[in-house]
Amino acid sequence: MAALRSARVLCSARVPLVQRCCVHLGQIRGFASPIKCKAAVARGVNDLRVEEVTVAPPGPREVRLKVHSNALCHTDIYTLSGQDPEGLFPSILGHEAGTVVESVGEGVTGLKPGDKVIPCYTPQCGEPDCIFCFPPRGKRTNLCPKIRGTQGNGVMPDGTSRFTDAEGKEIKHFMGCSTFSEYTVVADISCAKVSETAPLDVCSLLGCGVSTGLGAAWNTLNIEGGSSVAVFGLGAVGLSVIQGSKMRGAARIFAIDMNPKKFEMAKELGATDCVNPKDYDKPIQQVIVGMTKWGVDYTFDCTGNVEVMRAALECAHRGWGESCVVGVAAAGKEISTRPFQLVTGRKWTGTAFGGFKGRSEVPPLIDDYEAGRLKLDHYITHRFHGVEGNLQAVEALHSGDCLRAVVTY
Amino acid sequence: MAALRSARVLCSARVPLVQRCCVHLGQIRGFASPIKCKAAVARGVNDLRVEEVTVAPPGPREVRLKVHSNALCHTDIYTLSGQDPEGLFPSILGHEAGTVVESVGEGVTGLKPGDKVIPCYTPQCGEPDCIFCFPPRGKRTNLCPKIRGTQGNGVMPDGTSRFTDAEGKEIKHFMGCSTFSEYTVVADISCAKVSETAPLDVCSLLGCGVSTGLGAAWNTLNIEGGSSVAVFGLGAVGLSVIQGSKMRGAARIFAIDMNPKKFEMAKELGATDCVNPKDYDKPIQQVIVGMTKWGVDYTFDCTGNVEVMRAALECAHRGWGESCVVGVAAAGKEISTRPFQLVTGRKWTGTAFGGFKGRSEVPPLIDDYEAGRLKLDHYITHRFHGVEGNLQAVEALHSGDCLRAVVTY
Repeated sequence: MAALRSARVLCSARVPLVQRCCVHLGQIRGFASPIKCKAAVARGVNDLRVEEVTVAPPGPREVRLKVHSNALCHTDIYTLSGQDPEGLFPSILGHEAGTVVESVGEGVTGLKPGDKVIPCYTPQCGEPDCIFCFPPRGKRTNLCPKIRGTQGNGVMPDGTSRFTDAEGKEIKHFMGCSTFSEYTVVADISCAKVSETAPLDVCSLLGCGVSTGLGAAWNTLNIEGGSSVAVFGLGAVGLSVIQGSKMRGAARIFAIDMNPKKFEMAKELGATDCVNPKDYDKPIQQVIVGMTKWGVDYTFDCTGNVEVMRAALECAHRGWGESCVVGVAAAGKEISTRPFQLVTGRKWTGTAFGGFKGRSEVPPLIDDYEAGRLKLDHYITHRFHGVEGNLQAVEALHSGDCLRAVVTY
Repeated sequence: MAALRSARVLCSARVPLVQRCCVHLGQIRGFASPIKCKAAVARGVNDLRVEEVTVAPPGPREVRLKVHSNALCHTDIYTLSGQDPEGLFPSILGHEAGTVVESVGEGVTGLKPGDKVIPCYTPQCGEPDCIFCFPPRGKRTNLCPKIRGTQGNGVMPDGTSRFTDAEGKEIKHFMGCSTFSEYTVVADISCAKVSETAPLDVCSLLGCGVSTGLGAAWNTLNIEGGSSVAVFGLGAVGLSVIQGSKMRGAARIFAIDMNPKKFEMAKELGATDCVNPKDYDKPIQQVIVGMTKWGVDYTFDCTGNVEVMRAALECAHRGWGESCVVGVAAAGKEISTRPFQLVTGRKWTGTAFGGFKGRSEVPPLIDDYEAGRLKLDHYITHRFHGVEGNLQAVEALHSGDCLRAVVTY
């Protein structure tokens, strides 16, 4: 069955018959052959081209995935725009996806063709000697460094790429995911296996932005009922912080954005006070402190703007307020404040992927969605089809009224 | 007995006989008279003069204290030097002291003449509606704001000073303590009543610096056994962080200072690695990270230098390292870092008075000292006598080999 599914997949990818047969045999024998398929390749700054690429079989402890749905994230656009100093070209971007295992490499356990998987850019090696994966310290972080070096260099853990273009030249991976392609290869420790009934378009939401916002509220700052919260920036990440805060029972939630069109959804998700900094002629941190007595218990920057990060810290509550950097700042930018802000009891921290450990903590989010405990559909504001749809998604996300543009291949 | 003790006290302060009798009668009737005594008055920048001052009786909810011992702190020198933008002249500095209650104002409960008291610059009102004093939030802070405004303005809670000079002109209070005077008046909520047998010179150590260091380790960052710690700056505050860390069972303690003469005491208190940044030609944070794998679990700046604060943050452990600003920065200085440092799991915070709630949490420190569980004598490296000794103490603290210069009046 798994082999048949693989063969069918390869047909759709227009592989010559002889190769198709080889793959079929390969699958039966336990190894796979290269797949030719379509991908949106980032050739250079803002140069995204749909091309045929070849996706090599998964190596040891690797998994080849058929990508069903991809949700575009601002980080993809940031790298495409050339602002990311660590960005590499040519590369295949994309890191929020719902996928199905096509084949697995040597030594992979717990995953088989047909399994539904959310590729996670923060892996979870789960090895007993990993201090980042296991208690006591590992309880506090999801930043397993197992494949950090190679992932940052756009290659697989063995130092090579699985992608080649029509001329046989290497194309780099991106964030360990590269889901702007009909097929991709990722490390097995990056694969969050979700339920058999998981809708793959919804899965794509949980690969980065929405998980990050929910987790910032639940894991990183661990908001409790009755608390006050301020969220700066009302994109998908900020809105999911609001949603997560409301689910935890936050009593007052400030939603702050320069675009008042964002306020309606913020209110639907639980915001009690919507604030547009443009309506005031003093710094927004002073506005928020003025609306409270001593500031806000938990604050979040979801803009990536370092001045907003400062504002978020400085409106945190005297004595115990905690502020979390969620947005990704532009290269070279620094945050700053007077140390007095910390000495008077504020804490400044940040989050990556909301502190979720991918393999163990993301699948329950899908269970919650399927059980109706976690609403996610509202994040999908735009839908496109085919790998080409990623170009349309970029346009949509730039438009300002898009939360997530999901592209189904 | 209390009245007699007061009368004796007044004699030593050379009050005319008639006034002495009034005071005596006043004490018997439950109120006190002004006291003339000696004080080191900060007349202006680096202008410290011993003068006769008049100390008014304590007002409602105020306590007049006879100061026995004063330990000089860098904050006193900072204000005396004119660098403190909130510094006021003329004022009576000093905020680390061992004192005895001379008289109490109306409405004071729980304190009587003869009680030994450590005046605390962070008060603890303990009123049931104070969110900073009571759980749930108040568990996380000691920053009771009850008298914050007036204390910052150098006056008592009613907006006036209790000190006047020989010409009858007002002298400002300082940090709610003003212990460079033989007598002072403080708010009752600033008085930590300690055991009857408490040695008053040791008490003076716990009014600021040493408590701050111990509390930064115990309360603010709540170090646990087996952890790693880095302490930047090996004055009394930094050394007490080391001592507090060792008492909590820290396994590795980095002691960092540009003055290698500080290393001997650091090692005695528990430092395992003494590091002089001058011995390296790369940033100290890189040196410390290089001596570990991923950085240090808990780091402390005890220098007040904002560049060192940054270094302390940036050598904190990836994923969970916490860094505490303990030192007081110069006016207008700002801390900065790349937000990536926070996104990769570091937390930046600060402490004031080590998070100790003065009235409830400082007295047990004296109990620990008296029971031999807490060593404190080593912080007293210099001793001087009389209010004039404060001038010598300033010289001593500038010398670089002084931890605490205790002046006994």
